[in-house]
Amino acid sequence: MSEPRRNIYLRTLPIEDAVTRARTALDRDALMHTETVPAHEAAGRVLAAPVYARFSSPTFHSAAMDGIAVSAAKTYTAREGSPLTLALDADYRPVNTGHPMPEGCDAVIMIEQVVPVDDTHVQIESPAFPWQHVRRLGEDIVATELLFPRNHPLNAYDVGTLLSGGIWEVEVWEKVRVRIIPTGDEVLDFTLRPEPGAGQVVESNSQVLATMARGLGCSVERIAPVRDDPEALHAALRDSLDAGTHLTIFCAGSSAGSKDFTRATIEREGEVLVHGIAAMPGKPSLLGVCRGRLVAGAPGYPVSSVVCFEELLTPLLTWLSRRQSQARPVVEVELTRKVPSRLGIDEFLRLSVGRVGDKLVGTPLARGAGNITTLSRAQAVARIPAAAEGAEGHERLTAELTVPPALLDRIVVCVGSHDNTLDLLADELMGRDDPFRLASTHVGSMGGINALRNGSCHFAGAHLFDPETGDYNFPFIARFLEGVPVTVVNLAIRHQGLIVAPGNPMGIQGVQDLARKGVRFINRQRGAGTRILLDWHVREAGISPAEVAGYDKEEYTHMAVAANVLTGAADCGLGIHAAAKALGLDFVPLARERYDLLIPNAFLEEPRVRAVLDLLHTPAFAERIGNLGGYETTLMGRVMHPGDGLGDMG
Amino acid sequence: MSEPRRNIYLRTLPIEDAVTRARTALDRDALMHTETVPAHEAAGRVLAAPVYARFSSPTFHSAAMDGIAVSAAKTYTAREGSPLTLALDADYRPVNTGHPMPEGCDAVIMIEQVVPVDDTHVQIESPAFPWQHVRRLGEDIVATELLFPRNHPLNAYDVGTLLSGGIWEVEVWEKVRVRIIPTGDEVLDFTLRPEPGAGQVVESNSQVLATMARGLGCSVERIAPVRDDPEALHAALRDSLDAGTHLTIFCAGSSAGSKDFTRATIEREGEVLVHGIAAMPGKPSLLGVCRGRLVAGAPGYPVSSVVCFEELLTPLLTWLSRRQSQARPVVEVELTRKVPSRLGIDEFLRLSVGRVGDKLVGTPLARGAGNITTLSRAQAVARIPAAAEGAEGHERLTAELTVPPALLDRIVVCVGSHDNTLDLLADELMGRDDPFRLASTHVGSMGGINALRNGSCHFAGAHLFDPETGDYNFPFIARFLEGVPVTVVNLAIRHQGLIVAPGNPMGIQGVQDLARKGVRFINRQRGAGTRILLDWHVREAGISPAEVAGYDKEEYTHMAVAANVLTGAADCGLGIHAAAKALGLDFVPLARERYDLLIPNAFLEEPRVRAVLDLLHTPAFAERIGNLGGYETTLMGRVMHPGDGLGDMG
Repeated sequence: MSEPRRNIYLRTLPIEDAVTRARTALDRDALMHTETVPAHEAAGRVLAAPVYARFSSPTFHSAAMDGIAVSAAKTYTAREGSPLTLALDADYRPVNTGHPMPEGCDAVIMIEQVVPVDDTHVQIESPAFPWQHVRRLGEDIVATELLFPRNHPLNAYDVGTLLSGGIWEVEVWEKVRVRIIPTGDEVLDFTLRPEPGAGQVVESNSQVLATMARGLGCSVERIAPVRDDPEALHAALRDSLDAGTHLTIFCAGSSAGSKDFTRATIEREGEVLVHGIAAMPGKPSLLGVCRGRLVAGAPGYPVSSVVCFEELLTPLLTWLSRRQSQARPVVEVELTRKVPSRLGIDEFLRLSVGRVGDKLVGTPLARGAGNITTLSRAQAVARIPAAAEGAEGHERLTAELTVPPALLDRIVVCVGSHDNTLDLLADELMGRDDPFRLASTHVGSMGGINALRNGSCHFAGAHLFDPETGDYNFPFIARFLEGVPVTVVNLAIRHQGLIVAPGNPMGIQGVQDLARKGVRFINRQRGAGTRILLDWHVREAGISPAEVAGYDKEEYTHMAVAANVLTGAADCGLGIHAAAKALGLDFVPLARERYDLLIPNAFLEEPRVRAVLDLLHTPAFAERIGNLGGYETTLMGRVMHPGDGLGDMG
Repeated sequence: MSEPRRNIYLRTLPIEDAVTRARTALDRDALMHTETVPAHEAAGRVLAAPVYARFSSPTFHSAAMDGIAVSAAKTYTAREGSPLTLALDADYRPVNTGHPMPEGCDAVIMIEQVVPVDDTHVQIESPAFPWQHVRRLGEDIVATELLFPRNHPLNAYDVGTLLSGGIWEVEVWEKVRVRIIPTGDEVLDFTLRPEPGAGQVVESNSQVLATMARGLGCSVERIAPVRDDPEALHAALRDSLDAGTHLTIFCAGSSAGSKDFTRATIEREGEVLVHGIAAMPGKPSLLGVCRGRLVAGAPGYPVSSVVCFEELLTPLLTWLSRRQSQARPVVEVELTRKVPSRLGIDEFLRLSVGRVGDKLVGTPLARGAGNITTLSRAQAVARIPAAAEGAEGHERLTAELTVPPALLDRIVVCVGSHDNTLDLLADELMGRDDPFRLASTHVGSMGGINALRNGSCHFAGAHLFDPETGDYNFPFIARFLEGVPVTVVNLAIRHQGLIVAPGNPMGIQGVQDLARKGVRFINRQRGAGTRILLDWHVREAGISPAEVAGYDKEEYTHMAVAANVLTGAADCGLGIHAAAKALGLDFVPLARERYDLLIPNAFLEEPRVRAVLDLLHTPAFAERIGNLGGYETTLMGRVMHPGDGLGDMG
C-alpha cells in the first residue's frame, strides 16, 4: 500500500511527568512579564509584587453609630434613675455614623439611649466608656502595613481593601496569551455557518478550548482553520510566536497519521517534549517548546482535546499565571455498571451522577472520544488510574464534579427505555420556578428494571410487552422486582412501527417483509421493549431471526434506528412514529403500546418525583406530547394495575 | 437636641423571608426578556428555550482509526498464520481518522494490523467485524434530538455540542442589568484618586458590589457618587429606572439616620418591601420595588454591604437570571475561641481557616462591620444562626469557604505576637515556586502559647521576657506547654522602644517619663510580650501603673500603637522600631529582645513549616529584614535553648 511517512510516537508519558517536563523546559521568569492595571479593575488578576497600604482606614477616629459624641470622663456619674443632663457643644455634639469625632470627644452614645430635653440639652442614664462606638484611626488598615503578598490572587473583597488603603494601581502578572489554531482539510469554520457535506466536519474544538482558556483568565485568540499543509501550518506557528503568544495550541494533527503535521511543525521552530500521554481519551497529545514558548498539539476528537486541555494544559496555564490550581469538587459515587479499562493508562470516564436515596449513583456515559455530548450530559468525570484494570459495578469511585455540588440534589435520575417524550419532560422540569434536571440514560426497559433493583434511579421508563398475558410491565415487575415495591404510572400510549425511507420505496407493509430478500433491517438491543415486541411479531409471523438481514445489527435508540434508515445503511427498523417524523421518514404502524414510568414507592414523595407526577396531570404537557404525533395521552398520569393493558381492553 | 426626621425601621425580617417577599413582589416573566447570541459565545449564558439539533454528528459514517476501510464480510477467512490478501480499490481503501467510509465498506482495520505487500496489495491476519472502528452517523448527535432543555446554563463543553449540532445562534435570557449608586456627602470617588482629609472616606463598596455582580454574570454600571440630597438621589433613581435597570443598588443611606434618604427615595417611585434584616453585619438592608424593578439599599459599612449583597441580593439575581444557586463549599472547622452572638440574628463571622494536623481550625477575625480587610483575610464565613447565642471555643462549626478548598492545605497558620517580619515572611512564602499562604492572627505571645496548647496553629511567634531568669520564652514554655514538645527557632532580635511624635516634642527619654504629668501613654494588651516587657520596666523604674495615663488603653499591634501616636491620641507607646519608621515617627530605644518561632515538634517535617525554616536560612530574607531597621538577624534560623538569652550573654 502507498502511504506517506508516519510519525513515530515518543513513548507515552504519565500525565504528571508530561507536565513536569514542560515546566522544567520553560523559563517562567523570562516568559511572563508584569503590567500595571487600575486597582478597581484588578479582581481576578494575580499580584506581581507585595502591596503596602498608603492610607490608614479609617483615616480619622469616627463615630460608629448615630448619636452623640461625648467625653467619656464627663459621663461617669450617669445612672439609671439618676440621669445626667448634657449641654450641646459644651458636653455633646450630634454625630452620624462615619462622622469624625469632634475635638475632645472619645465616645459615642447611641441615639436610642439619649433622651432629648430641649433643643440644646439631652439626658443619659448610663455612663459611656472611652472609645465606645468609635472606629479608631487605623482600625481596619494602618498605613504602610502589608495588604497583600506577591502572587496573591485578587478577589472582589480585595478590591475594597486596595481602594480603602489608597491603592489606585497594582502591578499584576500579564494574562497568559493563548492562540488556538484549528487545522484540517476536512474542517469547516463554524463562524461561516456552514452546511457540512459528506467528509466534512464543523470544527468546534477550538472554541471549546478557547472558552475554557478564557475561564482560566487567559487572553485568547482563535484563528480560522488552517489546511493540512506543512508550509501553511509553519506560517501559522511563526505568526503566533511573532505575536508574543505564550501558548499556541494546534487543534488536531497531533497523532501519528500521514496527515498529522503538528509534530513536524513544532520541530521546525523548536523541540518536541512530549508526544503521547498515558491517558484515554487524550493519548495523542503533544507538547513542545519553540523560542521559549509553549506549543501544544491537541487531539482531534472532542473529548480527547478536552482531556488534553484540562489535564495537561490547565496545570501549565495555572502555573504560568501563578494561580493556585482550582481542583474540582470531589464526590464518591456508586458505579451502576462494570467498566473495564486498560492497565497503564489513566482513563477519564464521564458519569451521569445524581443523588438517589442516600447515595450518589454514577452511570457511565458512552466512552467514545468523539462524543462531545457525553461531556455536556455528564455531572462528573472519574479517573480510573493507570494501575487499575477498570472498576466493578457497584464499586465506589471518586469522581470530580463538572457541575456545582448543589446541583446533584436537583437531578432526577431516569434509567431505562428511550422515548422522545422524556425530552419534553426534561424541558418542562427545567421550566419550573424551582427547576429540576432530568438525567436520562438509555439502556432499554430491562436495563431500567435492573436499575430499579439496584436502587440506582428515581424511576425507569419501560414498555415491556408480555405476549402470554397481553399485559405491559407488570409480569416483568413480578419476575424481576420482588422486594422493590413500585408504582406504575403511564406516561403515554405510543405507536411502534417500521421506519422506512420517504415514500417507502421497498413497499414494506409489515413484519413479514423483513424476511424478504434485499430488505436490510436495523435492530434494537436485547432487553429493549421494542426488541421484545419485534421478537414477538417475528415469531407470530413464523419468521426465524436468521432470515432477517441485519437482525444482529443493534442500535440503542429509536433515533439511531431512524438515522440508519435515513442514510440508507438499513431499509427499515422498528421504532416509534416520532423518530420517523423527526428525520422526515415514513412510518408503517405495527402496534400500540404502553410506555410507563416505574417508580419505587420509596420515592413517591420525593420532590423530584412529585414534580414529574405533577407534570403528568398538566394539560399543556399532554398537548405537547400529542403534537409529536404517534402518541395517545388518554392514560397519562394514571396509576396502572396488572391486567390494565392498553386501558381499552377491559 | 435638634434632629431631622428619622426613618423608622420596619420590623427586621429573617433573610429568607426578605428574599421571598421580593420574589413574590416581582413579575419575573414580565421583567426579564430574552436575546439571541452567537452559539460560540454563549458559554455562561442561560438558554431561554430548548435547543434541538439541526445536524447529526457525525453527519456520515466515518473512519475512527487510521488504516484501511473494508467490507467486513470479505474478511471472514483471515486467520493468524493464514493471511488474507486484499487488493486496493477492489477490497480496501486507505483511510485516515475522520474520513467518510467509502461506498461498500463497513469496517476499518487499524494500520498497525495491516501488512503491506506492494503498492496495491496488503495482508491481514484476522477478520474485521461489521462497524469495527467506524463512527456511525448520529453516534454523538441525531438531528432533531433535544440538545438542551430551556433554562440550561451553558458551559464550555456545551459550546462544542451546539456547534456540532449545527446551532449557530441561541436564545438566552438577557443579562440582569445592575446599576450601583454610591451616595454620601463625605465619600470621595476612587476614580479621581483622592487624598482624603478628616471626615472624608474613599468610597469602595460600590466597586466591591460591582465586581461581585459581574461575577454572577450581570451587566453592571457603577456611577459617580451622589450627594446626600433627596432630589439628587431621586433623579439618580429615575435615571436608572428609565435606563431599564433591573436592579438599582444605593450604597449607604439605608439605615434610619437623619441623612439616610434611600427609603424615602424608593417611596417616591414605588414601594419599600423590606427595611432591616435579622443579620449582623447587614441589618440596615433595604429592598423595594419601583415600576416592577428591584431597588436595594445596601448598608454603608463594607462588610454589611457584602452581607447584604451575598445573602439578600445574590439569591434574587440568581433567580432573575434563572441560574441555579452556586452554594459555596462547606467545611467543618474547630473554633479557636468562644464567640458570643445575639439571639434572633444571623451573625456572619469571618474566619481565618487552615488545616493544622488533621483538623481545620478557624480563628475568628475582628467582628467590626467596618473592616473590609477581615473579608480579604478570611478563608471562610460561618453563620451563627438566629437561634444560637454564640459558639463555644473548640466547638465545631460549619463554615462556607470563600477560597478554593485545596487552598486550605497551603495555609500556614501562625498565631501569636505581631511582628512586621511576619509580613515579609508572608511575601516570601508566596514567592516560592510552590507558594504557601501565611494566615497570621495577632493575639500576643501568650495567645500564641495558648494556641500551641490547643493544637490550633503551626507555630507561634513569641518574645516573652522572663525577668527572673533574663531568658526568653523557655520559662513560659516550661510553665504553660507541658506535654507539647516544641522547638524554638529565632526569627530576629528586635529593638523595642518608645514610639514618639516626630522630633520627640515631649522630650521623652525613657520609661520614667511615662509617669510625668501630661504624657499620655498607649498600652498593649495583656499577654503581649511587649506588655510584659513594659510592666517589667515600669516596675524596675518604681512606677505604679496608676501613675501612667493611658495604661488601661490597649492596642493589639505595634502599628496600632504607632497610629495613636501619629494622630496625637497618645504621646507615646512601647513598640518596635519598624512601626515607628513606617509611620515616620521617632523612636526612643529601650531594649533588645528575642522574637522566636515556637514550633510543635510534630510539625517540624510538615512542608509548610519546612518552607518557613528554609527561609530563615536565606541570606536574601535576612537582608530584607535588616532593611526594615531595628532588627538584628545574627540568631535567625538558629534553634534556641534555655538560657541562650540574646546569644551574646554567654
